Amino acid sequence: MTPSEPLTSDDRSYVITFSCPDRTGIVASIAGFLTEAGGWITEAAYHTDPATGWFFTRQVVRADSIPYAVDELRQRFAGVAAGLSEQATWQVTDTGETKRVVLLVTTEGHCLHDLLGRATSGELPGRISAVIGNNPALRGVVEAHGLPFSHVPFPGPGVGGAARAAAFDELAAQVDAHDPHAIVLARFMQIVPPKLCAAWAGRAINIHHSFLPSFVGARPYHQAHARGVKLIGATCHYVTADLDAGPIIEQDVIRIDHGDTVHDMVRLGRDAEKLVLARGLRWHLEDRVLVQGNKTMVFA
Amino acid sequence: MTPSEPLTSDDRSYVITFSCPDRTGIVASIAGFLTEAGGWITEAAYHTDPATGWFFTRQVVRADSIPYAVDELRQRFAGVAAGLSEQATWQVTDTGETKRVVLLVTTEGHCLHDLLGRATSGELPGRISAVIGNNPALRGVVEAHGLPFSHVPFPGPGVGGAARAAAFDELAAQVDAHDPHAIVLARFMQIVPPKLCAAWAGRAINIHHSFLPSFVGARPYHQAHARGVKLIGATCHYVTADLDAGPIIEQDVIRIDHGDTVHDMVRLGRDAEKLVLARGLRWHLEDRVLVQGNKTMVFA
Amino acid sequence: MTPSEPLTSDDRSYVITFSCPDRTGIVASIAGFLTEAGGWITEAAYHTDPATGWFFTRQVVRADSIPYAVDELRQRFAGVAAGLSEQATWQVTDTGETKRVVLLVTTEGHCLHDLLGRATSGELPGRISAVIGNNPALRGVVEAHGLPFSHVPFPGPGVGGAARAAAFDELAAQVDAHDPHAIVLARFMQIVPPKLCAAWAGRAINIHHSFLPSFVGARPYHQAHARGVKLIGATCHYVTADLDAGPIIEQDVIRIDHGDTVHDMVRLGRDAEKLVLARGLRWHLEDRVLVQGNKTMVFA
Amino acid sequence: MTPSEPLTSDDRSYVITFSCPDRTGIVASIAGFLTEAGGWITEAAYHTDPATGWFFTRQVVRADSIPYAVDELRQRFAGVAAGLSEQATWQVTDTGETKRVVLLVTTEGHCLHDLLGRATSGELPGRISAVIGNNPALRGVVEAHGLPFSHVPFPGPGVGGAARAAAFDELAAQVDAHDPHAIVLARFMQIVPPKLCAAWAGRAINIHHSFLPSFVGARPYHQAHARGVKLIGATCHYVTADLDAGPIIEQDVIRIDHGDTVHDMVRLGRDAEKLVLARGLRWHLEDRVLVQGNKTMVFA
Repeated sequence: MTPSEPLTSDDRSYVITFSCPDRTGIVASIAGFLTEAGGWITEAAYHTDPATGWFFTRQVVRADSIPYAVDELRQRFAGVAAGLSEQATWQVTDTGETKRVVLLVTTEGHCLHDLLGRATSGELPGRISAVIGNNPALRGVVEAHGLPFSHVPFPGPGVGGAARAAAFDELAAQVDAHDPHAIVLARFMQIVPPKLCAAWAGRAINIHHSFLPSFVGARPYHQAHARGVKLIGATCHYVTADLDAGPIIEQDVIRIDHGDTVHDMVRLGRDAEKLVLARGLRWHLEDRVLVQGNKTMVFA
Repeated sequence: MTPSEPLTSDDRSYVITFSCPDRTGIVASIAGFLTEAGGWITEAAYHTDPATGWFFTRQVVRADSIPYAVDELRQRFAGVAAGLSEQATWQVTDTGETKRVVLLVTTEGHCLHDLLGRATSGELPGRISAVIGNNPALRGVVEAHGLPFSHVPFPGPGVGGAARAAAFDELAAQVDAHDPHAIVLARFMQIVPPKLCAAWAGRAINIHHSFLPSFVGARPYHQAHARGVKLIGATCHYVTADLDAGPIIEQDVIRIDHGDTVHDMVRLGRDAEKLVLARGLRWHLEDRVLVQGNKTMVFA
Repeated sequence: MTPSEPLTSDDRSYVITFSCPDRTGIVASIAGFLTEAGGWITEAAYHTDPATGWFFTRQVVRADSIPYAVDELRQRFAGVAAGLSEQATWQVTDTGETKRVVLLVTTEGHCLHDLLGRATSGELPGRISAVIGNNPALRGVVEAHGLPFSHVPFPGPGVGGAARAAAFDELAAQVDAHDPHAIVLARFMQIVPPKLCAAWAGRAINIHHSFLPSFVGARPYHQAHARGVKLIGATCHYVTADLDAGPIIEQDVIRIDHGDTVHDMVRLGRDAEKLVLARGLRWHLEDRVLVQGNKTMVFA
Repeated sequence: MTPSEPLTSDDRSYVITFSCPDRTGIVASIAGFLTEAGGWITEAAYHTDPATGWFFTRQVVRADSIPYAVDELRQRFAGVAAGLSEQATWQVTDTGETKRVVLLVTTEGHCLHDLLGRATSGELPGRISAVIGNNPALRGVVEAHGLPFSHVPFPGPGVGGAARAAAFDELAAQVDAHDPHAIVLARFMQIVPPKLCAAWAGRAINIHHSFLPSFVGARPYHQAHARGVKLIGATCHYVTADLDAGPIIEQDVIRIDHGDTVHDMVRLGRDAEKLVLARGLRWHLEDRVLVQGNKTMVFA
């Protein structure tokens, strides 16, 4: 039994992610730029995708090793990026700026409980700005953690069209008011309309309770039980207009056996869902996930 | 995305656990008794330990299939057990009686958060009667869940003897007032004195943050980091007077690599600790864990 | 470093598997019968499937505890089974009788190498009677292990009808000459015709290199790479006329990342394929796998 | 079922590994050098160890992108390394040069079978030059694979001193004749003397059948059974004069339960041993393992 450990770091850093069509000299160019600035690199990862010929990198530099502010770093790095490729995609984030997370929930609380516990324990690399439910069931536990809960009522299944669109408009307005870095569908039981998928592209994260692409859509544990699989899983993915088909961030499985009913699978699967969502969200907030097409590069 | 599933079962059952030196006819005798009573067996597991020659079984019978009350079942089963062996150890529990759990904590909240979340989600096969801390740090989250929190102050490290004994007396009095089926040391930073280990034998459960028997004692993640292991783990075990050496209920590991600092290991290890404790506690509360000497039979 | 351990047991046992619609008294009836015979039960497992209401059991009895021969045990047990249900399905096998295994291969040797190594190390609960290839590539390694290899040529892809049927007739004749307990498709690159699937029902075992039901059919690793999954898997299942859809015996997965090409996945996946096939085959040969409909009960 | 895939790559590469005390500009310096040479980097990994302040990198460059031979690359890179630090440790290897592996065995063949199967399947990034046994038991399977087997007799346990030293001298002479990149103790039942540990430092790899540091020394499965652990493991490590305490390359575990005897654990553990050794050996041969003190950096 050991005493409690602090898990946060006071080491403020700049995180650079960059991608462009591969060519020689990219690493040298970026490393040369950082060296010239006196940058102390604490993490660096590279990947070239042979299928597309694109190069991806993520670099972490100690903020106190750069003699100017992050805005100037961005401005100067823009020049480096432009010199490497017109198609370059990049960003520079400052770990000193706390990321904002909005959670969307319905009635199942296990992922919410898990994320609230992590936030309280200082494990989340970000701050939960708000929790929004299309059902008021989880208000209590959210407010008990001192966080705002908002209930946006949705029409029942089968009721559609205008009422549903209006509910989503209200939801989007409330979400967007926080300008969040991540919008987490923590077992949110609504299919996000294409317009919102587009607006939240690369920021909306869903947890699906199957090992995708197995058991897309509704009631995946029932599907898994019917098929007689020996493992069940969970998948954390970016939300796209194509249901349960967005870029996969993280997956994991747990073993079941013939003695497990659908209810057992639901209960056991929750542990996989919680872990997979927590890992995927962490990597997203730490700018470790780069997306190209329907695939992710995860520099974990 | 599927609608929420109820995870609890209204099926009240009687759980029979029994052990004695192995001989022929034990299964027939127990099964014959249950059949005569009209008992509908929904789960049955058996094990004979070749080393000791003891036989162990756990049987679950639907309560509504037995035409008399649980007390009479116990009375009648006592006769069966006596007929099989004078050394027989057995119990009959009624799932209709909710098990009581007391949690002991200090300042690290991840296991507490996890168990509170499971209790709120209806996943715990029991009820948290109270949380007792030797530090007040976790009072807020406990009371936010509507549960009583009690602070029993302990003397600082190095201060000992009478003050520590008095604190443990107060702790024991508060714990015993709940007559708990499980006393969970959820990262409780005190070494339980032998007298209490004896009083709570088979009911006190600890979560140790290493893959025992590696890294017994203090600061196991530091020990693991120093040794350069590639996996770290957690162990859920019954508390005995021999530190970190009690019967192991459950263990699991997670992969780390050279890039993980001790702080990373602390953070990553928490997920293993939470899962291992939750599984071990569930099995204990469901009477799935039989102990002989320093080993457990887990009929999971 | 320890000295070599013998892994085989001289303990000859009878393995009873039995299933019928559930009712009270089944366990008592079987246990009573065995007790009367003096049977020493060393393993026993039970399962009732709530969906179908069927009961399944597997029991292992020491052969030397039964005072008569296995044929008489079968004869007497037939009476017990008939008394329990007209629909009862059961068998009694004698571990003293070595199970016969025929392997079907094409050119990929990893599963073959693995099974040959296990057979040589005394780990296989059976004997490899023959290896039959539709390609001669793997003849050398088979004969080096002192086992017979037979090449049954098949027409190329696209060539069909009569030539393919004739090749399968020849293959079936060679397989059936061994009256095997297991016919293992160890990366055998032919789709077995429905007639043979029926003739070999419950004995033909395939290893599919994906986590079924994901990526049914050809080139599953290519499919997995295209979808960007984070885990790949393997599935061991009984062969049925419905391609890759037979009852699943065992599954497992391994983690991959964005840096793994399809070729890496093929290489990494082989370890999952080898392990999953070896486990599934072991359980099949030890009569641990009971099948009902499209599901298996695995009393592992 | 898919056709066989080629798993080897014709892409010849140069692998640069480099370490020195950390300072700014290392990445820029190496990347600048490679860019100037026209080098096409296909893999790059970095790590700085906060405890020691050392920096480690591994870089893979396409051989056909460098306009001169590997010897000249080494000569030029020596200048870069010298410019960065007097303490720099580095090497440049050419994947066009096949690595040589010598296996040492006794009587247990499972790791040998596994490595022979991988070599035959083209999965090993190297060539098995010879297998040497202190027991002739495994000669047959080695020669069946067309590889040389040599028997170097050792004195029995308890017999020591001069006879054992002479046997090790003979063993060393035979091993060293191959100038191997890896000497694999594939369940070799002799404790290597300190002189040989020193001579083979960084090249001799052992597989220990426990999750080190648990159960050091003899009969680890017996130790694990006695302790009642719920997982058993295997550890691949570099051999040092300190028994079972060398730098750990790779570890893994498998789940067991109370029903598993020591013999079951021996059998089940073999799968962990095979996989862990195969992974560790692969990484070693691909120059992915950098060692500092008693720890490894594995750029897997």
